[in-house]
Formats: sequence, C-alpha cells, structure tokens
Amino acid sequence: MHDTDFFPGIADLDNPQLQAELQAVNDAKTKPQGSLGRLEELALQLGRILGTTRPVLVQPQMVVCAGDHGLVKRGVSAYPQDVTWQMVENFLADGAAVSVMARQHGIDLTVVDCGVAHDFAPRHRLQVRKIAYGTQDCLAGPAMTREQCLQAIRNGMELVQALPGNVLMLGEMGIGNTSAATLILTRLLGAPLINATGPGTGLDQAGVQRKLEVLQQVLDAHPDAVQPLDVLAAFGGFEIATMTGAMLQAAAERRVILVDGVIVSSALLVASRIAPQVLQRCVYAHRSGEPGHQLILDALHARPLLDWGMRLGEGSGAVIAWPLLESACVMLRDMASFSSAGVAEKSA
Amino acid sequence: MHDTDFFPGIADLDNPQLQAELQAVNDAKTKPQGSLGRLEELALQLGRILGTTRPVLVQPQMVVCAGDHGLVKRGVSAYPQDVTWQMVENFLADGAAVSVMARQHGIDLTVVDCGVAHDFAPRHRLQVRKIAYGTQDCLAGPAMTREQCLQAIRNGMELVQALPGNVLMLGEMGIGNTSAATLILTRLLGAPLINATGPGTGLDQAGVQRKLEVLQQVLDAHPDAVQPLDVLAAFGGFEIATMTGAMLQAAAERRVILVDGVIVSSALLVASRIAPQVLQRCVYAHRSGEPGHQLILDALHARPLLDWGMRLGEGSGAVIAWPLLESACVMLRDMASFSSAGVAEKSA
Repeated sequence: MHDTDFFPGIADLDNPQLQAELQAVNDAKTKPQGSLGRLEELALQLGRILGTTRPVLVQPQMVVCAGDHGLVKRGVSAYPQDVTWQMVENFLADGAAVSVMARQHGIDLTVVDCGVAHDFAPRHRLQVRKIAYGTQDCLAGPAMTREQCLQAIRNGMELVQALPGNVLMLGEMGIGNTSAATLILTRLLGAPLINATGPGTGLDQAGVQRKLEVLQQVLDAHPDAVQPLDVLAAFGGFEIATMTGAMLQAAAERRVILVDGVIVSSALLVASRIAPQVLQRCVYAHRSGEPGHQLILDALHARPLLDWGMRLGEGSGAVIAWPLLESACVMLRDMASFSSAGVAEKSA
Repeated sequence: MHDTDFFPGIADLDNPQLQAELQAVNDAKTKPQGSLGRLEELALQLGRILGTTRPVLVQPQMVVCAGDHGLVKRGVSAYPQDVTWQMVENFLADGAAVSVMARQHGIDLTVVDCGVAHDFAPRHRLQVRKIAYGTQDCLAGPAMTREQCLQAIRNGMELVQALPGNVLMLGEMGIGNTSAATLILTRLLGAPLINATGPGTGLDQAGVQRKLEVLQQVLDAHPDAVQPLDVLAAFGGFEIATMTGAMLQAAAERRVILVDGVIVSSALLVASRIAPQVLQRCVYAHRSGEPGHQLILDALHARPLLDWGMRLGEGSGAVIAWPLLESACVMLRDMASFSSAGVAEKSA
C-alpha cells in the first residue's frame, strides 16, 4: 500500500486574495486596528480555514478516543488500568469534565473505543472501533503492528467522514497514554526525554523518576522507529493512531481542528509529519502543564489560547476554549464597520 | 457627609468552613486533583463569592459607562471626542464588539451616559445619568467637583441596585479615558508615569510622548490629590466614578465582578482603597496590552484568565472571558465524583 493512496489529499490554504479581504474586513470594524489582539488573529485564521470573510462554525464535534496501553504493567501511571473503561462509562453518563462542558456549549460528544481492555454494552454516543484489548507492552516489542496502526488511522478517517459540522475537537482517555505521547514526541522532535517527562495524571517525584527510566528503556528498545508511522506503531496507542487519522481527514475536509493537550498534540505531530498542511487548520486551545506539550507547541510555533496549567486530558481544554472561537467569528461577522456605524476614524 | 454613611457595607468573605467544603467537593470530582488548573481555582473562588458549593451564575449584566474628558483638548487621544457618542450609538445599535459578544452569550447590556458631551434620544437599554457634558480640563483644575464625584459614585450604586442577577461586568467608553486611568493608577500606586503610559486606542510613538508630557503636567498640577476620592475628582472621569460606585454596590450585594482592562481596573483601584473587601469578589478577565494595566494587576496580585494583548475597552475582554466562568461553575456543580461514578482513585 502506498501512502498516497491511503491518506487523504490536503490542500494548501495559502490564499493571498482571501487574506487581503479578511484583513480589510477586520480593519474596517469599529475598533482601533489590532485592539482585540489574539481575537483578531483567531478570526482571521478561522476565515482562512473556512475560506470566507464571514465564518460560521457549525455543529462542533468532540470525539473522545479511548485505548489501553500494555506499558502500564511497568508502573508508568498513578492510576490502575481499569480507570480507562470506568472513565468511558463516566463520559457516556455525562459525569466527566468533557461531558459537562460539551453539554454547556451544545457540542456533540462521541466516545470511541479504539482499543480498551474491556467490553462495553452498546450505547448511544459510543462507537466501537476496537483494534485490540489494549496495545502490547512496548518495552517487549512494538505496541502494535503496522497493520493495526494503519487500521486505527483508517478508523479515525472514517469516523470523521461520518460526522456533521465543520469543527473537530478530539479528546482522549487511556491510562498510560502520557507515556505513549512522551515517547512519540521525544522521538519525532529529537528532544531529551528528561525535558518531556512529567507527572501525567499525578505521579509523585519518585514515580516520575521510575517512569523516566522505563521510557528510556523503551526508546532504547526501538532505535529504528524514526518514520512517523513506525514511531506510532512502536509506542502506541490505538487512541493516538485513531486521532491521527481523524485529524488528517478533518484537514482534508477543511474543518477547523481545535487541539487539546499533550496526547492530542502527539497525534497531531504524527499527522503533521505525514501532511504538514494539517497545521494550517489547527487552533491550539491551551498550554498544558505537562512538559512535553510545551516542546510540541514550540516545534509547531503554536500559541495556545489559554495558559491555565491544565493536564486532565479528555479534550477538556478544547471544550473550555471553544466559545472563544465563536467570539472570533461573531466579531468578524457581526460587528459594524466605521462607515456603516457612522463612527469617525483615527485622527492622530 | 461621612463615608461610612455613604458607602455600602461590604462583608469579609473569609469562611474557612465553606472553603474546606469547596475543596472537598472539588477534590472528589473524577479528575486528578488540580488537573484542571486555573479552572479549579476559578470554581473555588466563585463558590466563595456566592457562598455555596453549587454556584450558579444568574442573569449576568454588562453595564457600559460612557463619559467625555476635558483633557482631550490637549491632544492625548488618537480619536476625536465625537467618537464617544458615536460609539454609544453603536453599542445601542448592536454593532460594537461588546454588543455582538454580549448577544452571543445572552448577557444583558445596559449603556449609561455618565457624562457624554452629547444629548441622546431616549432608547431601550440606555440610561442617562449625566453629571455634565464631559469633565473639565484637569490640566486647568480638577476634572470634577467632589460633589460631582460623589454623585457619579451614587449613580453607579443605584444602577447596580436596580439590576437583576449575581454577576456584574463593566465596560467603558470615553475618548481620553486611558489618560484618566493612567493618572489615577499612577498616583494611587506611586508608579512612574513612564511605566504606565501607553498608546491607548492607537497613538503613535510621538503621540505617546506628547501624552506623557501632558500627563506629567497634570500630575504636577494636583500635588494634593492623594486620597482615593480626591484622585478620582482631580483626574476623572464621570464613567470611572460611576464604575467605582457600581463595583462597591455589587460587592455589597455579593455579586461576582468580572473585571475588564485598564480603565475598569482604575475604577476598581479606587473602590479597593475605599473598601478592600471588594477585591474578594473580583475575577480578572484579561491582561490588557496597555502598560498601566499590568501595574494594577501586580499591585492587586491579580492573575487574569486571558493574556491576549487586547486594548479595546468597552468591556470586550470581560464578555469574551465570560463563558470561562460558566465552565468553572458547571465543573463544580455537574461533574461526577469518584464514588458516584464508580471510578477507581489514584493508586501510586
């Protein structure tokens, strides 16, 4: 299979004429130029992504991808593996952070079993795209086969194809997945492991040290994993691979992608190595407290909207930031211009 | 008139039992403790202000206070004075930034003529509490008399008394009012003028230099203005004094006060010198691009929610940040606890 057949084509959004039109519309609004700071930059970007000076965000989708990780038997997480399926139940029962804030904003929530070590009863809003009951222990071999990796990516692409709207938010759940994300970003960025390894959901200092030692052994065990798909297959997980596919498809469909924290960003890093144009569609919701996230943000020259020290995952940062995107569109669409409002322009 | 008769009594919200209850409710939520970062701090504060572990924000009010400034004849603003009344018309016609984003979030908008140099036709959502047709030139004397100052404060108190809900946002409009705010904060904080003086709505470098010279002359002309009400009367403006009263009343009624940028914060600085307990009710929406704002935030040990380089005024930063407060309440009220959701707790 050739990559060019497998992955969707993603157009370059660079369009100087649209950019000039957007700038002119923005500059005519009844405010000193640039006085809304980041909101203006955000509005211009949303206009570029959606290809219009009057952007409308339609039926935003939050897709929470869950999977388990074989590496957890090495003691890299503060929580037992069962928390993965328990939290999936919590998402579906409207009890989790992402659930209550998605409901606050009228965001559709879909939960995907990408590879949880548990069988779920069929449920409204639950999609089962299970590759296996968790990945393999990546200290003993690759987390997944190349075929599993491609299938998970394809699952993500198909999931997005079936969703309405023009905005994709991704969230994730998987005990052990800050380890997977840290391995992926460390390898792809060539960054020192110690700069990327943090407490995840809440390890103490000794726990972080143990995690650091395990992750170093895992990196050493996969010296040949350098290409993005090899890195993804070596370190996992199924939810990260599914999100990689989801972002590639969303980008191909010219959806806005609102990026959450370090796990989602690790999937984006893989996607951006497959198709850099994905990045043109990305808005970064927040700067996570997990140190690896900063490394990705720096590498992507990304400036998040919020800097709140959040490190929950689930897509919680994305749903919190969501209304800020709506405000940017409202500003660009609905504000009066100096001429339409009869307001005098700058004199000095 | 004694101050104690004039100003409303504002209770100290310090309540260790409530704080302990709030912390316990927050810590039981299905998330690693502290993993929602600033959102958790915000939720705890809103619970403290409203006196409950289940805070509900009701009928949020945005009150935009407008006034003109005699000092503008000295060339301290990039815009002509007529822009004040023209923007009031724009607020009422739903064309301004604060208008469109208040509508986005279902926030009630009230516009107050606190002292605009213009007569407005009566209008829905416009309240006329005009002290005069603009303040006096504060280079030639005080911007207003003490009686005018107290009347404007009383106007603000009465305005809030008549408003429903438990959240107050204030915005402002007044060509020249970054100069008034800069004079107030410089004098009350004892800060060097050069550290506080910025471009306002968009002066160029030469304009900022000229403004700096004028403001220094004004400061030198009022060496005895040291007490908060004297500072307010010396430098203005009517909209700032009205907002000072509005915040004192809102604090007395235990409303949440969502603070916008440098002008609103200068009114808060005055209010906090009259009654420091007002600060317990304050959430800071954003860090303005105007340098004086940083000085106030530092002095109040305030950490804003957004750092977006905004400097429009109107209350635009507050309405943009508003849904973040709702998310904090939703988190505290609606998220499941570990026990209610059947999710295992931390093991390591």
